[in-house]
Amino acid sequence: MTIGVLTSGGDAPGMNAALRAVVRCAVVDGMQVKGIRHGYQGILDEDIIDLDSLSVANILTTGGTMLKTARCLEFLKSEVQDQAADILRKHGIEALVVIGGDGSFRGAAELAQRGINVMGVPATIDNDLGCTDYTIGFDTAINTAMEAIDKVRDTSASHERACVIEVMGRSAGYIALYCGIGNGVEEMLLPELYDGNEDAIAERMLATRAKGKNIYMIVSAEGVGDASGLAGRLKEKTGIDTKAIILGHIQRGGSPTCMDRVYASVMGSRAEALIRDGKRSRVVIYKNGEFGDMDILDSLMVRKALPNDFLMMSRKLIR
Amino acid sequence: MTIGVLTSGGDAPGMNAALRAVVRCAVVDGMQVKGIRHGYQGILDEDIIDLDSLSVANILTTGGTMLKTARCLEFLKSEVQDQAADILRKHGIEALVVIGGDGSFRGAAELAQRGINVMGVPATIDNDLGCTDYTIGFDTAINTAMEAIDKVRDTSASHERACVIEVMGRSAGYIALYCGIGNGVEEMLLPELYDGNEDAIAERMLATRAKGKNIYMIVSAEGVGDASGLAGRLKEKTGIDTKAIILGHIQRGGSPTCMDRVYASVMGSRAEALIRDGKRSRVVIYKNGEFGDMDILDSLMVRKALPNDFLMMSRKLIR
Amino acid sequence: MTIGVLTSGGDAPGMNAALRAVVRCAVVDGMQVKGIRHGYQGILDEDIIDLDSLSVANILTTGGTMLKTARCLEFLKSEVQDQAADILRKHGIEALVVIGGDGSFRGAAELAQRGINVMGVPATIDNDLGCTDYTIGFDTAINTAMEAIDKVRDTSASHERACVIEVMGRSAGYIALYCGIGNGVEEMLLPELYDGNEDAIAERMLATRAKGKNIYMIVSAEGVGDASGLAGRLKEKTGIDTKAIILGHIQRGGSPTCMDRVYASVMGSRAEALIRDGKRSRVVIYKNGEFGDMDILDSLMVRKALPNDFLMMSRKLIR
Amino acid sequence: MTIGVLTSGGDAPGMNAALRAVVRCAVVDGMQVKGIRHGYQGILDEDIIDLDSLSVANILTTGGTMLKTARCLEFLKSEVQDQAADILRKHGIEALVVIGGDGSFRGAAELAQRGINVMGVPATIDNDLGCTDYTIGFDTAINTAMEAIDKVRDTSASHERACVIEVMGRSAGYIALYCGIGNGVEEMLLPELYDGNEDAIAERMLATRAKGKNIYMIVSAEGVGDASGLAGRLKEKTGIDTKAIILGHIQRGGSPTCMDRVYASVMGSRAEALIRDGKRSRVVIYKNGEFGDMDILDSLMVRKALPNDFLMMSRKLIR
Repeated sequence: MTIGVLTSGGDAPGMNAALRAVVRCAVVDGMQVKGIRHGYQGILDEDIIDLDSLSVANILTTGGTMLKTARCLEFLKSEVQDQAADILRKHGIEALVVIGGDGSFRGAAELAQRGINVMGVPATIDNDLGCTDYTIGFDTAINTAMEAIDKVRDTSASHERACVIEVMGRSAGYIALYCGIGNGVEEMLLPELYDGNEDAIAERMLATRAKGKNIYMIVSAEGVGDASGLAGRLKEKTGIDTKAIILGHIQRGGSPTCMDRVYASVMGSRAEALIRDGKRSRVVIYKNGEFGDMDILDSLMVRKALPNDFLMMSRKLIR
Repeated sequence: MTIGVLTSGGDAPGMNAALRAVVRCAVVDGMQVKGIRHGYQGILDEDIIDLDSLSVANILTTGGTMLKTARCLEFLKSEVQDQAADILRKHGIEALVVIGGDGSFRGAAELAQRGINVMGVPATIDNDLGCTDYTIGFDTAINTAMEAIDKVRDTSASHERACVIEVMGRSAGYIALYCGIGNGVEEMLLPELYDGNEDAIAERMLATRAKGKNIYMIVSAEGVGDASGLAGRLKEKTGIDTKAIILGHIQRGGSPTCMDRVYASVMGSRAEALIRDGKRSRVVIYKNGEFGDMDILDSLMVRKALPNDFLMMSRKLIR
Repeated sequence: MTIGVLTSGGDAPGMNAALRAVVRCAVVDGMQVKGIRHGYQGILDEDIIDLDSLSVANILTTGGTMLKTARCLEFLKSEVQDQAADILRKHGIEALVVIGGDGSFRGAAELAQRGINVMGVPATIDNDLGCTDYTIGFDTAINTAMEAIDKVRDTSASHERACVIEVMGRSAGYIALYCGIGNGVEEMLLPELYDGNEDAIAERMLATRAKGKNIYMIVSAEGVGDASGLAGRLKEKTGIDTKAIILGHIQRGGSPTCMDRVYASVMGSRAEALIRDGKRSRVVIYKNGEFGDMDILDSLMVRKALPNDFLMMSRKLIR
Repeated sequence: MTIGVLTSGGDAPGMNAALRAVVRCAVVDGMQVKGIRHGYQGILDEDIIDLDSLSVANILTTGGTMLKTARCLEFLKSEVQDQAADILRKHGIEALVVIGGDGSFRGAAELAQRGINVMGVPATIDNDLGCTDYTIGFDTAINTAMEAIDKVRDTSASHERACVIEVMGRSAGYIALYCGIGNGVEEMLLPELYDGNEDAIAERMLATRAKGKNIYMIVSAEGVGDASGLAGRLKEKTGIDTKAIILGHIQRGGSPTCMDRVYASVMGSRAEALIRDGKRSRVVIYKNGEFGDMDILDSLMVRKALPNDFLMMSRKLIR
């Protein structure tokens, strides 16, 4: 039996750990493994390489993805999906492991409808998949962002400045929420909740200063909007020197944390086991403290809510 | 209402985050907070200080415990427990938050039987409490150990040596298991499972070398026994240069990871909320992906099993 | 004898280590020490506190400055400098240690002309002081930037993107040069040398891609100009996806490296020793591999050149 | 022209950066490069591989050495040295770059006497070469050790314990000295100076506790002797709980610091330039703030003294 594996969408630390697990478990179970480079684009380009146990040596600890990744707009077209399924069949690939986020799983579901068995492994630093409590890369990303924000705090405190720190998260505020609590910031702006009331933020900044606390750190998710503009407007409203810091792509890289290495390994090995056991069109998930799996199309229907108790608690923790 | 708080037993990164949450939530809810220094010993010594919101500023990000900690053997005596309960009452402390491991909770349960309301917050780098899937400090400890082992791998690979790396865990192999997978080591020795068959290890070392792989890393939990001795015996049996590295106390320190900061904050705030809501003798837990609480005496009865699927998987991941 | 100490200008990791050394050495030598908060502004505000050995406990390892810092435009006026000298005398401060960069030393030189003994300790992450080969904070800043750029490389390589990474350095390219070599980037843009020829950069980007290397990392110093604009124009010229990352204030913070802790300690202790030994108006320097000191006014005249051999070498190191 | 390159002795972070510079500069200058694996042993085993620019891609940031290293006792024999020179000639290797410490340079000098041109690049975490102020790997090692000791401080302070932390350095106390200052420890034991007076240490421990400071950290270089034994004896003498921590091989590994990456790159490129320019039997050095070179035999004669001013200063910095 021959399986394919690809990484798709935004890269996330731990993708390599998951890939290594898929490959090594498949080899132990007697399968052939083909790696497809550059995500779905690589199917169309037939950019396909053989992988064995040695191919994935020394990648467990590395960020990024050795198979490269890409976003492939062309793949949204039905005729391109037909073509991709044909190419996979031509290469003898009966099952495909897709390591990526919801966009990648949508593509996988299309291939499933064209007769390719697909297994999704959730990997996105945004942790924005409703079907699973854990996604590969999130734990590394929040630690990277948190350590950067710890450093920003040093200099903000020294200058008694305010700052707006933009972290990743277009529609999901998970990174902002975890860093908000983990860094003990004065304010978090989350796309799910932000009401755009900048006057209220300015008032809280002034109230905080009035009681003698001369630092005001705001963590804002990307989806909330332009951090530089916000910093400028808050400075104007309050008279308090307010800097913008956009953490950007550093949040995607780096050697994965222990949790990301371990959980990515478990998820990769489970994807392979599902194929071996004859399951079809599943996503590996972590839910209620346990690893499991669910139908890939169903998985795309699940919505995720921010933990409200975290939010309420966080307000009590700020002096 | 006045509550007390102490940290007890081995220190764990995140204890300060939990302490900060207890104090700040209590202040918001109108309570007085007294910090007891050096664990149970501090009750006997009446080493008790007032804490307010400002007292716990800037500790969220720090390792160790600002209240200090200790192991107090004397506290095992019934008459000393009577005396401690009296001292707490004398200081007006109606409820006591105990941040620590199972030994600390046993002490708390004794105070509970003497009329003091107690709330346990699980903090131990060993993750060896059956009542909860998460304990404060474990996530930081595994990342600290993993990063150290990554470094050991560099030099072991350069010299093509074998090594035995001892991590913490007297009776529990969690740190060894997570690092074993996270570092991709060739062998893990866990106290729950290790059969003491050194000849078998030696054979696997030789078999690995025979197939051309010139590194052999063994992660061994403290409870398995003397790593230096084992390294020496394996060297003798195999002729392969084998070094012992004992990671030791570095695993207890360091700024907590994001997960440890966030979860410790949640657990501390929940302990306070339980007191505020009139609950008695509970332990805050994280189980099945959710925070909750259970009776402190019951909590001590729960056994914990190593995740067997992790173990079986890990064998397939090594080339 | 009473001495004052302040930190001024942009903060730099290691300022606290220098401060600790000044204070502890002065105490051993029987002096009184007064800390002036918020740089020169704090003289005018008489924001002055007593410091002893215990005041500076636990700051050796911390970023930022416990005395806070500020840029004080008002202090450029002659009458304000007169006033500041009077205030220092009023508080019995006979000598003042100024931890900061060239702007701070200019202020110190003005006080010297008004009869206050001043000692400069060079601290700036930009390493832009001609009088000294080492400035406090530079070593930490280059490591912080380098680690961030390592992470950016992971994701850029995964997406086979180009990127422009802006590091600090308004007029000095030291951080860009060291990171350029340390991160092995394809191109460095240094304010001392950059000719603004974006077409040439675009050509090199295309030539690199033509030979099959699908990553192109550019490190650009702040002084070279808007990184976002440059990334956009390069993308347009080349058709290669090019992202901008502005590292910003994270470069100022963080626990100092070993070199910054040790050298800052040496420099702080030397500043104190110069006062004790009756020297006047000096700057502590590190030159030709040795610590020394020179006249503070003279120090401001020395120009610094980028190491040309580093630059020429760096071109040979890129594939 | 064909040159060889090898890494020898204990590995040091930055060896790969130096190797990359040697190879890439040589390729630019039109030379062929052969890599010899496992140090001098690899000459005897003819374990020799071709290296080009691509061979050394992605190693700048990695610890260890991709050429592997070894200590080769056999190479001390004159007839073996003859044989090695013959093998190098057989492979057309006219000049050999040796990246290592003084033992490695001794071997190189023997080859030089047998007609092979040799260039030494100083790489040892111990910084124990008299000819140069900088050796590759030292800066990374002191930061690794320092960060580990920061963590030990957290837990020692929490338990109010004393500790003896053993760092590397058989005959040289540089790592102990830099960490001693950088970690602000109470006591440093350096092989160059230690008088073995344990009673005096015990007295200082008791005196420190008597004035209310309940932590006592001792950094001891490997060459001073058994840290575990010392900790035990100090505990007995003082009654103060004293733990031993042996940092061991973690000090050899890890991604190099920025200084190690940059300076190793410069030194590697200089070694190649010396060969290209027809120089013979030199060692690349960094002395008086400048890179240079000297005769390899002369280099072995230079003794190194610990900086006494650092030592005297350090005593004033401890409360």
